Amino acid sequence: MKPFRVRIPIRFGDVDHAKIVYYPRFFHYFHIAFEDFFFARLSRRYVDVIERGKLGFPAVRAEAEFRVPLRFGQTIVMEVSVARIGKSSVTFGFVGRRGRSLAVVGAVTCVCVDMGTFRSRPVPAALRQELMKHRA
Amino acid sequence: MKPFRVRIPIRFGDVDHAKIVYYPRFFHYFHIAFEDFFFARLSRRYVDVIERGKLGFPAVRAEAEFRVPLRFGQTIVMEVSVARIGKSSVTFGFVGRRGRSLAVVGAVTCVCVDMGTFRSRPVPAALRQELMKHRA
Amino acid sequence: MKPFRVRIPIRFGDVDHAKIVYYPRFFHYFHIAFEDFFFARLSRRYVDVIERGKLGFPAVRAEAEFRVPLRFGQTIVMEVSVARIGKSSVTFGFVGRRGRSLAVVGAVTCVCVDMGTFRSRPVPAALRQELMKHRA
Amino acid sequence: MKPFRVRIPIRFGDVDHAKIVYYPRFFHYFHIAFEDFFFARLSRRYVDVIERGKLGFPAVRAEAEFRVPLRFGQTIVMEVSVARIGKSSVTFGFVGRRGRSLAVVGAVTCVCVDMGTFRSRPVPAALRQELMKHRA
Repeated sequence: MKPFRVRIPIRFGDVDHAKIVYYPRFFHYFHIAFEDFFFARLSRRYVDVIERGKLGFPAVRAEAEFRVPLRFGQTIVMEVSVARIGKSSVTFGFVGRRGRSLAVVGAVTCVCVDMGTFRSRPVPAALRQELMKHRA
Repeated sequence: MKPFRVRIPIRFGDVDHAKIVYYPRFFHYFHIAFEDFFFARLSRRYVDVIERGKLGFPAVRAEAEFRVPLRFGQTIVMEVSVARIGKSSVTFGFVGRRGRSLAVVGAVTCVCVDMGTFRSRPVPAALRQELMKHRA
Repeated sequence: MKPFRVRIPIRFGDVDHAKIVYYPRFFHYFHIAFEDFFFARLSRRYVDVIERGKLGFPAVRAEAEFRVPLRFGQTIVMEVSVARIGKSSVTFGFVGRRGRSLAVVGAVTCVCVDMGTFRSRPVPAALRQELMKHRA
Repeated sequence: MKPFRVRIPIRFGDVDHAKIVYYPRFFHYFHIAFEDFFFARLSRRYVDVIERGKLGFPAVRAEAEFRVPLRFGQTIVMEVSVARIGKSSVTFGFVGRRGRSLAVVGAVTCVCVDMGTFRSRPVPAALRQELMKHRA
């Protein structure tokens, strides 16, 4: 299956005093891509997973390498994949490119939790199956 | 009573591509000052007003004039006052100074709502009394 | 001319403790719409106005009314118009709708400045002409 | 030497739809702590390092583990240390606690660059010496 990609324009307020993307913002871009990935590829909106399914996927670990500074006016194309699926956790992989340059590479591990208790629970079988299709 | 003031340092990530404070951030500074004002002058934490009192004060109107551009490394001293108290609304006034320069002047009108229904309800008498002491 | 509109999805991190859009974020939405308006309707990218034209349009005044609380998963359609053009200032008008509901109405006055000195200067004639076509 | 610590209150707008700190914000907290560490322990303001010294320390790698969800109204005490000093890079370590609970542990590797060219250059000897005192 073609990997999921989303275009994210770098906004005027996304940069810092050095006029490059403020690095915490890359993790926000990861989250934007994660939300869009849910809708486009997992056949459900993340908000519905939370509000109707009473499940959430809070991050327990995040990492990123920043290869090329990005600036206002540029566009990042963020690719999302599933790096690993455990019993109750999922690691998403992110690769952000500006043109052909690799700009950022990252991974975020989320744990499937019951939104009422914040306790971990197994990733539901149907969702697991959908996630499987996107393993990197 | 001495007006409430809080020092807010301008952070590396608070500026935009023009290397001045991204103007929406000033409204975030207003909110920071509002939160600290609640605790320091209204004898309660805003989180407790919401979580225990089941009341919220969402903004229904906000305005600001930006007089002087602010930069990373500078500090804004934000003064909070109560400009107007209606039956179920409160208008907070904000004056931000950098040294002796007026940097920003603003006002935010909040409506007292029941957090369960988001319907407006009268400002509780005890809170009203505390707010009265801070009228500009 | 058909008014300029842009769809802005409400993101997971755009809301606050009350689970509605954190009100300063609406001004960020205004800026996003302003950036896209520049590109789509004024035949130039805002970044090029700044970097090549050495002109900027910092906000000197902003105001907004928040009519309906917005939540994660919803989408705002933001309409941009030109409310007023002065010699060296432009007031942009913003109307944000969620479906048929008016969610937010606002205005931001920007002053045309030389990016080297931050001093105001007349809006260039060509840009003024383009802006004129979008008067509300 | 006593490790550097700074108290960071969790703000109303710092949380997400799950009412816990939006995880990219933890990296913003890291940056706040980094800025305060520069001033308090390295005898210089980060803004002066950039503007006068023409040096910057952009992040090339960042990682964090989120151990406990944090909520509006809580306070994080962030500890900063120097985990590693290379020829032209510095890895800062961050440990954030809420009371006695470990809330977040992270590391950010920054490269010393010339602000004019964004090319790496050796960490200046005087700064290196100061950094050495804070090795974890």
